[in-house]
Amino acid sequence: MTILLPTAVHRWPLLFSCFRRKLCLAKPLLAGEPEGPVVTTAIPGPNSLRLKNELSEIQNSDAVQFFVDYTKSIGNYIADVDGNMLLDVYSQIASIPIGYNHPDLIEAVKSTNMRSMFINRPALGVYPPKDHVQSLRSSLLVVAPPGMKNVATMMCGSCSNENAFKTAFIWYRTKQRGGKEPTADDMRSSMQNQPPGSPQLSVLSFQGGFHGRTLACLSCTHSKAIHKVDMPALDWPVASFPRYKYPLDEHADYNRNEDQQCLAEVQQLMEVYKQRGRDVAAVLVEPIQAEGGDNFASKEFFTDLQKLTKQAGAAFIVDEVQTGCGATGRMWAHEHWDLPESPDLVTFSKKMYLGGFYFKPEFYVKQGYRIFNTWLGDPSKLALLDVTLRVIRRDNLLQNTQIAGRTLLAGLQALEEKFPALVHSARGLGTFCAITCRDVATRDNILTRMRQRGINMGGCGEASIRFRPMLTFQTCHAEIILERLNAVLKEF
Amino acid sequence: MTILLPTAVHRWPLLFSCFRRKLCLAKPLLAGEPEGPVVTTAIPGPNSLRLKNELSEIQNSDAVQFFVDYTKSIGNYIADVDGNMLLDVYSQIASIPIGYNHPDLIEAVKSTNMRSMFINRPALGVYPPKDHVQSLRSSLLVVAPPGMKNVATMMCGSCSNENAFKTAFIWYRTKQRGGKEPTADDMRSSMQNQPPGSPQLSVLSFQGGFHGRTLACLSCTHSKAIHKVDMPALDWPVASFPRYKYPLDEHADYNRNEDQQCLAEVQQLMEVYKQRGRDVAAVLVEPIQAEGGDNFASKEFFTDLQKLTKQAGAAFIVDEVQTGCGATGRMWAHEHWDLPESPDLVTFSKKMYLGGFYFKPEFYVKQGYRIFNTWLGDPSKLALLDVTLRVIRRDNLLQNTQIAGRTLLAGLQALEEKFPALVHSARGLGTFCAITCRDVATRDNILTRMRQRGINMGGCGEASIRFRPMLTFQTCHAEIILERLNAVLKEF
Repeated sequence: MTILLPTAVHRWPLLFSCFRRKLCLAKPLLAGEPEGPVVTTAIPGPNSLRLKNELSEIQNSDAVQFFVDYTKSIGNYIADVDGNMLLDVYSQIASIPIGYNHPDLIEAVKSTNMRSMFINRPALGVYPPKDHVQSLRSSLLVVAPPGMKNVATMMCGSCSNENAFKTAFIWYRTKQRGGKEPTADDMRSSMQNQPPGSPQLSVLSFQGGFHGRTLACLSCTHSKAIHKVDMPALDWPVASFPRYKYPLDEHADYNRNEDQQCLAEVQQLMEVYKQRGRDVAAVLVEPIQAEGGDNFASKEFFTDLQKLTKQAGAAFIVDEVQTGCGATGRMWAHEHWDLPESPDLVTFSKKMYLGGFYFKPEFYVKQGYRIFNTWLGDPSKLALLDVTLRVIRRDNLLQNTQIAGRTLLAGLQALEEKFPALVHSARGLGTFCAITCRDVATRDNILTRMRQRGINMGGCGEASIRFRPMLTFQTCHAEIILERLNAVLKEF
Repeated sequence: MTILLPTAVHRWPLLFSCFRRKLCLAKPLLAGEPEGPVVTTAIPGPNSLRLKNELSEIQNSDAVQFFVDYTKSIGNYIADVDGNMLLDVYSQIASIPIGYNHPDLIEAVKSTNMRSMFINRPALGVYPPKDHVQSLRSSLLVVAPPGMKNVATMMCGSCSNENAFKTAFIWYRTKQRGGKEPTADDMRSSMQNQPPGSPQLSVLSFQGGFHGRTLACLSCTHSKAIHKVDMPALDWPVASFPRYKYPLDEHADYNRNEDQQCLAEVQQLMEVYKQRGRDVAAVLVEPIQAEGGDNFASKEFFTDLQKLTKQAGAAFIVDEVQTGCGATGRMWAHEHWDLPESPDLVTFSKKMYLGGFYFKPEFYVKQGYRIFNTWLGDPSKLALLDVTLRVIRRDNLLQNTQIAGRTLLAGLQALEEKFPALVHSARGLGTFCAITCRDVATRDNILTRMRQRGINMGGCGEASIRFRPMLTFQTCHAEIILERLNAVLKEF
């Protein structure tokens, strides 16, 4: 079993030796960052609490952590409204690519064209701006997954997944019709939400997966009940996702068995749903189940899943909304799998500023207005992405992420050796790292204490901590976090 | 029957007399606009055609009308990439509020705070910016529908409707539980997409309605089959929407009967779906079915619909995505109905720059993370809205829209009298006007000829032309359009 995670990382012989500043080799990528976090009040502080209370008069504000001064936030550091400056490894739920107020972005937004894109938002599918083709070529197509040359832009992750489903449904039904366009009967019955025009097709998803919160995406989301309860769901199949034991090299047989059982379940569900007249038109999977707990699976699992999906005549959709845009050390997490051919559809959003999906040529929809909405994304976000991708290339941020990730993961592995009763299962690719706590109360307690020490982090799954730094996160930032996490764990 | 349309409009005694410039009383609101359209090539011109061809290598580009130079577009005029300047009464599918490159917006985006909001996109539900409460108060809450004080921000129209459905489902299930939170069994079963956690609730929508294209919204959309075909649909009820005969005052009895039949159908469908275990938790309606053909209904219809919905214990959702933000001469089209109480939920997007929905206090969701997603809108769009609403107030743009709309509608009525074999059923509120052509071929032909005369317009429904100008559209612009439409109709 080839392990997806970088097993070649050596455990630190001298625990935390490199915390000493002189060993922090990386030159800071971003000028203006503080030397470290600055905490002067409880977090949330009095100003955040007052504002949160005011916001709650307008809408539920329970999820608000603190209010932010975005003009003062810089690089990897987020400034709250109480004068605190936190090292941010949650990055707006993994959606800031190159740090706050990056100088290249500040400069770029001064241009007349960027301003024009911002204040004159086009209906991109009908009246695209003059440089739209060039903009797609120099941004989204430059970083297209290997072998993919087509892309559609959308609004957000849910919008991207919903439209990837739609593209798969059109492809599936067109295949069933032998390549022909919908019949008059298809057209008529669809207006009544009835078959054959509205067919009973399904999307297969995985337990623990998260794919968004619009109702069809939510039917594919199975990370937490509070997201789903009280919402009607589509009758779509749900398979188990591998749950590995760590360290991986000590549990290879168990983990490979997990893969095989899950793949068998996928195959069985496809057959059951076909018999029930609800053909699986697409299989939807995250490269790493992020919101669901940073659950990894092997490259063999994904390679076999793609093969099995293809054999069943379904589309293979890889949801890279959280994993995409470099955090794993490659532009797309699925590149780590070395698939024999690209996925059929790859969805993205978050750090890409706008949503969208790449698709293979056979998924090109032949009729206009079928994959369509008013805005179809936002060219001002595309312009930000263009600048951002240039920065990523110029500053070797993928390589930076690999290097910083090695420090972070090795440090987490050292911590689980030192505190085995508190944390376990350190895992990661690039800086897309996680560690699991003994229980949810401990996890929440650690997050609170870390925040009070100036580190803004997030949880995921049942009792895990997820690290979602920006691509400008460096070894020196990892060292600050590991040092403080070490101190917090000592307090238990 | 109280007619929703402004019947007090007098037909022009002297047909097109006010085309003469001296009668154009309104002072132009926007400096820098050309005196009229400038057309120097076929539209789409050679540059647009070349770019469209290039775009088609990346994605389907059939819906593209022409490529646009947004830096050169100004006020009500859109500049294409072939040197043509068109008077734009389609406004990016009704989503530009105060014209292209409005000087107040150009000035506003120079501010550090606006730039910061643009390049540092927050996860609004978790880390809102320091001025977020103030921003909601000075923008969305200032223009809240009468009686509404709560609002949630979202991404786009579909996202807003999906989240309004979710809010209604939570409210409905909470009522059924006697106000209690979900049970452990609810939570567990929801993770399997099964009842009781995933209940079989439904949303009732109307034939001819359009509510977006994500799959749940699409199940409520019934305007055109090409939007729906090949897509799985939820088993949700669909009622008929009144189809009036025009002129309204000549068909009062027929139209009132339409109302009553449709209301009876709504009531019957609610009972049928309750018996089938698929309770109608919400009724969803547009004030004017826009995409579906600019189908109007009377204020009695909507008042009775609200009453009937309330009696059935369902939520009354008014979708103001296209009708909202002033085009009917009031901020919200449903204000024309003088309802005894506000709708339960009012959704918006398009000219508001971002999506969202207003809700009554009883729809306030008590638990965090239930109405949630990564971005929950975009504060940079909220900042644009703030400026835009100030301009609307300062420049009396609602009043302007009422005045310009009277000219436009009176002109359309005059044209249907002059060309009864070609066009009929002129109708409108504010500048939200339409006229129906004898058939789809004639409609498309008229749109093409008008574009070639420098007027960019859109179709809707089977054979209608819809007018969706910006709020800066004035009487003098209406005159240009009416003059050219008169000339085009003469050519048939």
